[in-house]
Amino acid sequence: MATLSDWSDTELAERHALLTDAYAEIGRRNLQLDLTRGKPAADQLDLSNALDGILDSYILQDGTDVRNYGGILGIPEARALGGRLLDIEPAAVLAGGNSSLNLMYHFVNYRLESGPAGAPGWRTTASDPVRFICPVPGYDRHFTVCDHFDIGMVNVGFTADGPDMDAVEALVQADPSIKGMWCIPKYSNPTGHTYSDATVERFARLPKIAGPGFTIFWDNAYAVHTLTGQAAPLANLLKLARAAGTADNVVMFASTSKITFAGAGVAFLAASEANLNGFEDYLTASVIGFDKVNQLRHAKFLPDDAAIASLMQQHRALIAPKFELVEAKLQAALGDKGIATWTQPDGGYFVSLDVRPGLASEIVKLAADVGVKLTPAGATFPGGHDPNDENIRIAPTFPPLEDLSAALDVLVVCVELATATHQMGSRS
Amino acid sequence: MATLSDWSDTELAERHALLTDAYAEIGRRNLQLDLTRGKPAADQLDLSNALDGILDSYILQDGTDVRNYGGILGIPEARALGGRLLDIEPAAVLAGGNSSLNLMYHFVNYRLESGPAGAPGWRTTASDPVRFICPVPGYDRHFTVCDHFDIGMVNVGFTADGPDMDAVEALVQADPSIKGMWCIPKYSNPTGHTYSDATVERFARLPKIAGPGFTIFWDNAYAVHTLTGQAAPLANLLKLARAAGTADNVVMFASTSKITFAGAGVAFLAASEANLNGFEDYLTASVIGFDKVNQLRHAKFLPDDAAIASLMQQHRALIAPKFELVEAKLQAALGDKGIATWTQPDGGYFVSLDVRPGLASEIVKLAADVGVKLTPAGATFPGGHDPNDENIRIAPTFPPLEDLSAALDVLVVCVELATATHQMGSRS
Repeated sequence: MATLSDWSDTELAERHALLTDAYAEIGRRNLQLDLTRGKPAADQLDLSNALDGILDSYILQDGTDVRNYGGILGIPEARALGGRLLDIEPAAVLAGGNSSLNLMYHFVNYRLESGPAGAPGWRTTASDPVRFICPVPGYDRHFTVCDHFDIGMVNVGFTADGPDMDAVEALVQADPSIKGMWCIPKYSNPTGHTYSDATVERFARLPKIAGPGFTIFWDNAYAVHTLTGQAAPLANLLKLARAAGTADNVVMFASTSKITFAGAGVAFLAASEANLNGFEDYLTASVIGFDKVNQLRHAKFLPDDAAIASLMQQHRALIAPKFELVEAKLQAALGDKGIATWTQPDGGYFVSLDVRPGLASEIVKLAADVGVKLTPAGATFPGGHDPNDENIRIAPTFPPLEDLSAALDVLVVCVELATATHQMGSRS
Repeated sequence: MATLSDWSDTELAERHALLTDAYAEIGRRNLQLDLTRGKPAADQLDLSNALDGILDSYILQDGTDVRNYGGILGIPEARALGGRLLDIEPAAVLAGGNSSLNLMYHFVNYRLESGPAGAPGWRTTASDPVRFICPVPGYDRHFTVCDHFDIGMVNVGFTADGPDMDAVEALVQADPSIKGMWCIPKYSNPTGHTYSDATVERFARLPKIAGPGFTIFWDNAYAVHTLTGQAAPLANLLKLARAAGTADNVVMFASTSKITFAGAGVAFLAASEANLNGFEDYLTASVIGFDKVNQLRHAKFLPDDAAIASLMQQHRALIAPKFELVEAKLQAALGDKGIATWTQPDGGYFVSLDVRPGLASEIVKLAADVGVKLTPAGATFPGGHDPNDENIRIAPTFPPLEDLSAALDVLVVCVELATATHQMGSRS
């Protein structure tokens, strides 16, 4: 079958009628399906049920009672776990609470107000403009943090190597009010990119050509989340930044949220000593200490690289079939029609689907109207605004396989129906 | 024995020589004792060790999987526990993470930026002055939150009924930039006050004579922490405020920090529906959800009032003897000398010791120099500045009884030595 653009008017009309019937039939199924968020499924969460009841002592080797107050940087055992995820020595790691997003929010606020080793904050008066570079499509909650602090956002696109570094370098050179950049360097949300070594090296040098205080927010949320069993190699930004003399301009994040319990894991931050000290001071007003008991649970549950690898292998066994189903369904229904492209990620939690420009919102609405919730069109862009209205994020992990299958069947009909409708309209 | 002021010069000189010798002897003991913070002791924490391993299911009655993301207001079961501590219906309660201080910090920031039902924040421009009333002596971490946000602090003293409400009412009437007030209404830190019904009723009406947005921060940290077995009655501010039409001007806090694990408990906030909605919106930028697994652990561990009462009775058995020891030691050494007064609290975690004006810093330093750490003099006042330099907070719960005893022996020598030295100086 040729691509849809090559069809005759008759072929197109016949196909449109078929799709309209199919869509109407779907509407009668009273579906209630949800592909919106990157949440682990219950069977994945079950893999970590041993966390509760794992503790036989609350006293650490250094004598700390994890049940009591105090210790903002976290317990040594948990900082070591964070160091394993971020490939860095434990002394550079803060082990926090159940949310890396919360650490990112506070690190942004810390840098707005102050900086490492007495460096000034980004905003010395309330009217100082502060902007972040956001690779798009990206993670909506990063953008929400910027919105909350009235931080402007500048979009850049991707190349196969990660963010378009030519564009990034030109931006930071031209505009010293650009103070930060969000990065998900491995199995990026939602595009699945893993940044190449050359890209990471350019990131390590980037602060040298940027305005003062420019900081790279390296959200390594999917550090160990391979879907192929073969971990994608990622160069270590903090180590490269140390070599380049830019370590104060880098902060890395990770968490166990998609390793153990999504809402009850441990989050980590790694930074230079000066930033770690500055951030600890900043946190003192709001934090007496994070939950050290849960930190100890996690340190006991994931005592070494082998334990992490084994657990992630079990996750992979559960979710890789879901990603395979997405690929199979999209390929079968849309593969030869030239109306959509999508990613085949090696890891992470998402498939990024690009439809014809201008149709994403309509497709999401068509799906919603027959009971299939998709992430809102535009959610993967700052301000919820996809300038091309073409990107749809698919989050296949949470629903059971049969629900995912049913939802994908609806999605492909909606994609094709919207495209055919639009094609007919453009010809008439 | 007469009070020290009545002693003859000779008596004073003899006593001073004795105290100097005693102090020198203490210095040779190489003590390392700590009365600084209100932390539970290990035997108290042991009372809640059953928290780990208490879960047999992670799925709630409403179908929520507590292991997964989401739900900023907390699980219904935990909101009910917060409601029991704060004597309010669960719908008015947010169940949070491991720190009520963190909720207070964020509620202050929420009110700086915005307000309930679209009301403006306290600070529409960065230069808007915002002040809080602080009953003194009070809790240093409350003051740190104000410092962090550049909120000015105005001290008021106490009467037997709680804060000096005549002074409070005059202040809020005179100065509309006063936007908040810290209160620890039951077994106040460090003075042990429980506010009288009349005082709480005046608080409920207070917003009517204050500037717009004035908010009472009701930190009920010691809601169930009796030392006598007889709970001090405390009127319910939020309920009275509802009746007075001031519910949007009130927020109450509690936590299990000094009930279960100090650093791994659950914190609660209760507020009007409009504030709960506004605060939830505010939190959305930084919180996906608090740790619902730990919330469920706590709900199972403390399923009803009887379970809370039974646990608090076990705490009391462990810590009441420590408070009795403080009273006995202070009374024996200082009781008849007219050089210090102190509280005999019915609950809470502190004894507040007032020495002669100008001597608190010196006494704390004397004790530190022989290995006994006390809370820094002035810590119970905004800016760390006790205008009379007379208040010392004693936190007796954490050290074992024998360490507490040794530390108190040192403290009383330091109090008397500093006073005698000063008395001799003033006569010469």
